[in-house]
Amino acid sequence: MRTRPLKVALLGCGVVGSEVARIMTTHADDLAARIGAPVELAGVAVRRPSKVREGIDPALVTTDATALVKRGDIDVVVEVIGGIEPARTLITTAFEHGASVVSANKALLAQDGAALHAAAEANGKDLYYEAAVAGAIPLIRPLRESLAGDKVNRVLGIVNGTTNFILDKMDSTGAGYQEALDEATALGYAEADPTADVEGFDAAAKAAILAGIAFHTRVRLDDVYREGMTEVTAADFASAKEMGCTIKLLAICERAKDGASVTARVHPAMIPLTHPLASVRGAYNAVFVESDASGQLMFYGPGAGGSPTASAVLGDLVAVCRNRLSGATGPGESAYAALPVSPMGDVVTRYHISLDVADKPGVLAQVATVFAEHGVSIDTVRQQGKDGEASLVVVTHRASDAALNGTVEALRKLDTVRGVASIMRVEGE
Amino acid sequence: MRTRPLKVALLGCGVVGSEVARIMTTHADDLAARIGAPVELAGVAVRRPSKVREGIDPALVTTDATALVKRGDIDVVVEVIGGIEPARTLITTAFEHGASVVSANKALLAQDGAALHAAAEANGKDLYYEAAVAGAIPLIRPLRESLAGDKVNRVLGIVNGTTNFILDKMDSTGAGYQEALDEATALGYAEADPTADVEGFDAAAKAAILAGIAFHTRVRLDDVYREGMTEVTAADFASAKEMGCTIKLLAICERAKDGASVTARVHPAMIPLTHPLASVRGAYNAVFVESDASGQLMFYGPGAGGSPTASAVLGDLVAVCRNRLSGATGPGESAYAALPVSPMGDVVTRYHISLDVADKPGVLAQVATVFAEHGVSIDTVRQQGKDGEASLVVVTHRASDAALNGTVEALRKLDTVRGVASIMRVEGE
Repeated sequence: MRTRPLKVALLGCGVVGSEVARIMTTHADDLAARIGAPVELAGVAVRRPSKVREGIDPALVTTDATALVKRGDIDVVVEVIGGIEPARTLITTAFEHGASVVSANKALLAQDGAALHAAAEANGKDLYYEAAVAGAIPLIRPLRESLAGDKVNRVLGIVNGTTNFILDKMDSTGAGYQEALDEATALGYAEADPTADVEGFDAAAKAAILAGIAFHTRVRLDDVYREGMTEVTAADFASAKEMGCTIKLLAICERAKDGASVTARVHPAMIPLTHPLASVRGAYNAVFVESDASGQLMFYGPGAGGSPTASAVLGDLVAVCRNRLSGATGPGESAYAALPVSPMGDVVTRYHISLDVADKPGVLAQVATVFAEHGVSIDTVRQQGKDGEASLVVVTHRASDAALNGTVEALRKLDTVRGVASIMRVEGE
Repeated sequence: MRTRPLKVALLGCGVVGSEVARIMTTHADDLAARIGAPVELAGVAVRRPSKVREGIDPALVTTDATALVKRGDIDVVVEVIGGIEPARTLITTAFEHGASVVSANKALLAQDGAALHAAAEANGKDLYYEAAVAGAIPLIRPLRESLAGDKVNRVLGIVNGTTNFILDKMDSTGAGYQEALDEATALGYAEADPTADVEGFDAAAKAAILAGIAFHTRVRLDDVYREGMTEVTAADFASAKEMGCTIKLLAICERAKDGASVTARVHPAMIPLTHPLASVRGAYNAVFVESDASGQLMFYGPGAGGSPTASAVLGDLVAVCRNRLSGATGPGESAYAALPVSPMGDVVTRYHISLDVADKPGVLAQVATVFAEHGVSIDTVRQQGKDGEASLVVVTHRASDAALNGTVEALRKLDTVRGVASIMRVEGE
């Protein structure tokens, strides 16, 4: 074993960074044995240097992250700051000064992954980011490597623990959205400003990363259709139950049937209770991957938290260190397929639509005619009425999102339709 | 991209080998793009050369596997023959003649993994074997690489599809073992001679491989305690249901609480219906991995079959080809921890014991005394009696296998105990 240590610079020492530093110290012998050389924490860049950080030598702490990544003797930069800047500039600077990078930064990877990969490649360095998607769950490596000889057709997953906690709570207790969010906040599962989670931004960034790797195609955050889950109601869960379903916020990356394009989207959807994703509880994450040869695979585990995310970071750190010792680099960006990313209108799925309608004869015929005119075939209709008001619940066969939108627009214009109470996609069948 | 192809020799062209050859042809462009060079099928060693193999150039087919691996221009040998010999000699010869090896051979890896790894290392070559455990499910790579910065404490899995199909059938239909086995055979899930599956040999080989990787310790097939599932009865399933459990054939690899030793075992066990492994149906496989930092991860998918196994083989093929192009090798054997493998008697778990006893006063007191004398603490007892005969169902707290065996031996000597109807371990709580 080489005795000269590999030097690691840590950018950020919050929940994840402090766990990375802790495990690097407590498991130093194991890491050295698995890498083939010791690893040394050579510097820690933080915003508040005065904060006491147990187990970290104060002499290593600096506020000058730029100077740290420019030192030139750093082998691996671990970036756990998050956000676009200064993370982007620091990572690029690290490559230029000879370091490889391990990052947990989903927002940055989803927005600028291609440029970062290009910078890594131009400098002959590694960019690893297992921790950016679904915390501890090995997902990037299986997709990039284990399935490298297969053709992935679909990735369907619960990739945000906060929203899964909220939806699971609504499902199991009948609580409304606000009540469930309040509990998630009180328990630390939701941040004070939950926008990134509940509006689906976090899941959309992960969907972009997963779609890019799965389809060997550049997929940016802007390419991902996004709908949050703040409008999901207790009534939606009641409707889902009647269909033998529950509701999850899903990230869905699909190859079109003809193989010539892909789509990526995040939205709440009904899935059958018999689907393995339906039983993913609390803040857990799980991702289904469907491929030509392997069939259906599922990966399940804690999608966030300091320790699980640190586990993913350290797995990457070991790999990148091994690559440095052997003078090789791991798989870089694979975007050779360069498939077009289709807009949401092209997505084909099933829909569950609740309409408030006048309770009089002929309404169903009118509504059915609108669906037919837009080429959306109806699977089932359920009609409930009392006191002159009624509701119609329509479940369609597979149709394009564009056709469904046209249908809904036309339905809203009918005198007999008082309102569209909810539209929910049905997935995983 | 390099234009000179990497040459692949295929040993065996059965269910898996023919799928590997087919995908290498149909997905040649994708494989080339992902590897960075084309791959060429340079030879196929078979036993029956006269058999027509669709899509394979007859000029590539040979019965002389030894000459094929000795050719010297082969980059990667894919071994999908199975069994110990001639596979072992062919793999070793391949390393000596400059090739890296991708193998799906669990029996060989479990028996001679250390020697094969040593031969690979001595020749500076790769030995990859994702397909040896749980078919298409990425498991070896996540354990070797994704969790390389973590400390794995337990691997608990359903790693044999045949036995899971049989047990699932018994559970869902109330069928007996023989009836369920007959159905599995008729549907092609069980071989004509099902011994390797139903007696747990196949699962034990996988347990040895998983324990070795998880604990960075050599674990051989002989180190794995093994009990088949041919004795599991419909009555056992009825007992399991009363406890809110089902029965699965589990492979369990554990680090002792003090961290100083490990155990590996395969046996049928009751697990709670709430455990994610309980809902793994049919011939599917699933493996739970518990680690210090990552918590609980689960990997789920098809554990066997030509296409899924070929997917795993091809993922390894891409990785090994990439390594050859960069002049590096992937992770080799990691056995530095060299922990002792403890015998089954040291395993600590809970037990469900059914006793046939005389229906008279004082029997429960006698039985309870025997448990107490052997230091096995009772959690619950259920007593059912009629017509002078009775049954006692005892569920214990955690105790060592040795203590439980001592208890059962002493119980058999009691006049009032007519027989021990069943002993089943309780896991996953």
